[in-house]
Amino acid sequence: MKQRLLFVPTLKEAPKDAEVKSHKLMARAGLIKQTASGIYTYLPLAHRVIRNIEKIIREELDSRGCSELLMPALQPRDLWESSGRWSEYGPELMRLKDRKDRDFCLGPTHEEVITDIVRDYANSYKKLPLALYQIQTKFRDEMRPRFGLMRGREFIMKDLYTFSESAEDLDYWYKLMKAAYTRIFERTGLATRIVSSDVGQIGGDEADEFMVMSEVGEDTITYCQSCAYATNQEFSKLATGDPCPLCGGTIATAKGIEVGNIFKLGTKYSNSMKALFTNREGTLEPIIMGCYGLGISRTLMAIVEQHSTETGLLWPDEVSPFDIHLVPVSYKNDALINKVENLYDLLSESYDVLLDDRDERAGVKFKDADLIGIPIRIIIGKDFENGQVEVINRKDDVKKIVPLEGLLETLKSFN
Amino acid sequence: MKQRLLFVPTLKEAPKDAEVKSHKLMARAGLIKQTASGIYTYLPLAHRVIRNIEKIIREELDSRGCSELLMPALQPRDLWESSGRWSEYGPELMRLKDRKDRDFCLGPTHEEVITDIVRDYANSYKKLPLALYQIQTKFRDEMRPRFGLMRGREFIMKDLYTFSESAEDLDYWYKLMKAAYTRIFERTGLATRIVSSDVGQIGGDEADEFMVMSEVGEDTITYCQSCAYATNQEFSKLATGDPCPLCGGTIATAKGIEVGNIFKLGTKYSNSMKALFTNREGTLEPIIMGCYGLGISRTLMAIVEQHSTETGLLWPDEVSPFDIHLVPVSYKNDALINKVENLYDLLSESYDVLLDDRDERAGVKFKDADLIGIPIRIIIGKDFENGQVEVINRKDDVKKIVPLEGLLETLKSFN
Repeated sequence: MKQRLLFVPTLKEAPKDAEVKSHKLMARAGLIKQTASGIYTYLPLAHRVIRNIEKIIREELDSRGCSELLMPALQPRDLWESSGRWSEYGPELMRLKDRKDRDFCLGPTHEEVITDIVRDYANSYKKLPLALYQIQTKFRDEMRPRFGLMRGREFIMKDLYTFSESAEDLDYWYKLMKAAYTRIFERTGLATRIVSSDVGQIGGDEADEFMVMSEVGEDTITYCQSCAYATNQEFSKLATGDPCPLCGGTIATAKGIEVGNIFKLGTKYSNSMKALFTNREGTLEPIIMGCYGLGISRTLMAIVEQHSTETGLLWPDEVSPFDIHLVPVSYKNDALINKVENLYDLLSESYDVLLDDRDERAGVKFKDADLIGIPIRIIIGKDFENGQVEVINRKDDVKKIVPLEGLLETLKSFN
Repeated sequence: MKQRLLFVPTLKEAPKDAEVKSHKLMARAGLIKQTASGIYTYLPLAHRVIRNIEKIIREELDSRGCSELLMPALQPRDLWESSGRWSEYGPELMRLKDRKDRDFCLGPTHEEVITDIVRDYANSYKKLPLALYQIQTKFRDEMRPRFGLMRGREFIMKDLYTFSESAEDLDYWYKLMKAAYTRIFERTGLATRIVSSDVGQIGGDEADEFMVMSEVGEDTITYCQSCAYATNQEFSKLATGDPCPLCGGTIATAKGIEVGNIFKLGTKYSNSMKALFTNREGTLEPIIMGCYGLGISRTLMAIVEQHSTETGLLWPDEVSPFDIHLVPVSYKNDALINKVENLYDLLSESYDVLLDDRDERAGVKFKDADLIGIPIRIIIGKDFENGQVEVINRKDDVKKIVPLEGLLETLKSFN
């Protein structure tokens, strides 16, 4: 892909309302642009990262037997009345009327719609289990949208719902999804910590949150560093420095960004919405549900927060918008352009390559490249005439002058 | 993928409100489910087809230098005031207020948002051209939603916008996109006809529509069969049977489903929204725009309309949710299941395979398979013990008994 047509509108200064590092960087690196408070456009670079995150999610969920569909954003009031949430939900629920004066809301979550879909079909234990998910734009009218994509009013989520005939089967899916989430976040390059949480508004009896430790997080986590898991319920009365009741370590507290949550919903929705099935004994009972959310736009923001300095980003390999940033110091004379494009074509056979084809000064190009944060940079400078380029593996910032005939070998050695 | 977990809720009877063949079939084949009037869930099979259509669109647009982003569905009133469309647009525009009583609409189209994004950046001819697109859920509050996905209130579109420094450059992109659309629809298996059209509400001075000829279309097309193109403006005064002014043929009229449209917008939005750039002579002028829509959910519906009979579908290869439907007549004893799964694993190395792992009667499975319409069906019947399966290439409905060792060869011969 060529940078000029790709549309990467980098900025020298972050917008004034950007308070935290990731928000500033995302605006400066041409990743997002605000359209209204808490409402953003994902510009082409960010969109590529989001599609990479989505690909990871799909691979991990599909390989575990989950199936993808797409539900509507517009949800009719009667469905929300049947679950009781039309009146329970506060002003975060965006409501509107259609031209015939019927009430709708914009879905912040889809328990009602999915329960409605499944209840007409799964009338017998023979048709269970089901694990259905979607990747979709969601809406929540936050009182104080802030920190860019962290607390937005329109955001991208993966939401998954499981339908089981027994508590044992729900437990099987719950553990399977916990493992899937762990793997998904690992592959995105995010370090997360699992925290057992209160179940809150959604209801149910077991819940875990996936947290990214960060100064800009909005949740306080109580944990101990030598335990893999933290449990707010058990630890909530403990303070920093107290001995940990589970291990020899000491208790710590930190801020966290919630990027995923999983709930054992139980029969809250299947009871109220009459999603019943005939069990193996021949009697009718409500389907046992689980729900599993993963904030995709928030994951993007957390990756930027974890993988950046004040001057720029460094994308983890699997989510990076490109593998290689090819930066010709000059891009003016036709013979040179021709040679650069040949190299670009060659590299593009094996890698996703971004070619900086702009007629800009080298300093501008390097600053933008630092901001954008592609893991491998190839600089085409004055040694190009002698058949040499400079290769930078940005993970260790080691620079190498490499002859063109050895370039592919050098790139392979980085994997 | 295994059919039980995939969730394909086929129906014996179509819902009562389904008037046309494609709508009936889409409901019966477990492709869509209505949540409210004109508002549907895309169930897993339909979702796979939609993702295939999106893949084709991305390949054809990206290879022509277009770049993908994602804009918000929620659009603030002030943007629509600045283009004049807040008052121009009728009740089809879904409007709502946020918790602070500010006006928003749900985007039926994104000229205002994209112009706002580009105007801050493209202040010089050096930063043009740009060709930016998105694939997104859109909203239009139709007076009479009908025919399933044909006239829905929430639908999936690809919308693309080009920004040029000159009429010549706009013309270049316009022709390029016309070629891209032609190729996209060819690859989806749809026969389309290009019709020059009135520009209507969006404004501008040249426009073409891509039409699928169909009894259930809502537009009347005047055309002559020996011409590749039809021109409503030129032909609108002619009647069926009149001689064609362009060729030796005769005029015909038919109904058409509009699946795509392309417009030379000109400076309507760049003028009103002050999207100005410095041209090569150093003077400021408005950017020249084009916009290019493609209805993805409507394309899905048009494919079903063109590629089906009353009893079922037959997907064109490139959009088919699966390549092969593997249907074991019985799926009960462990030794058999084991052998079937081995075959499933083997085929899955080269193909997208749907395995009917349901414990249902053969008649039920065959009826569902006819409905669902995967191009190649492999039936595992009583000859499986002797190492033989039945292969049906549904395009010509020729059945062959094939020994397992020759199966891959037989499948290759279908390409």
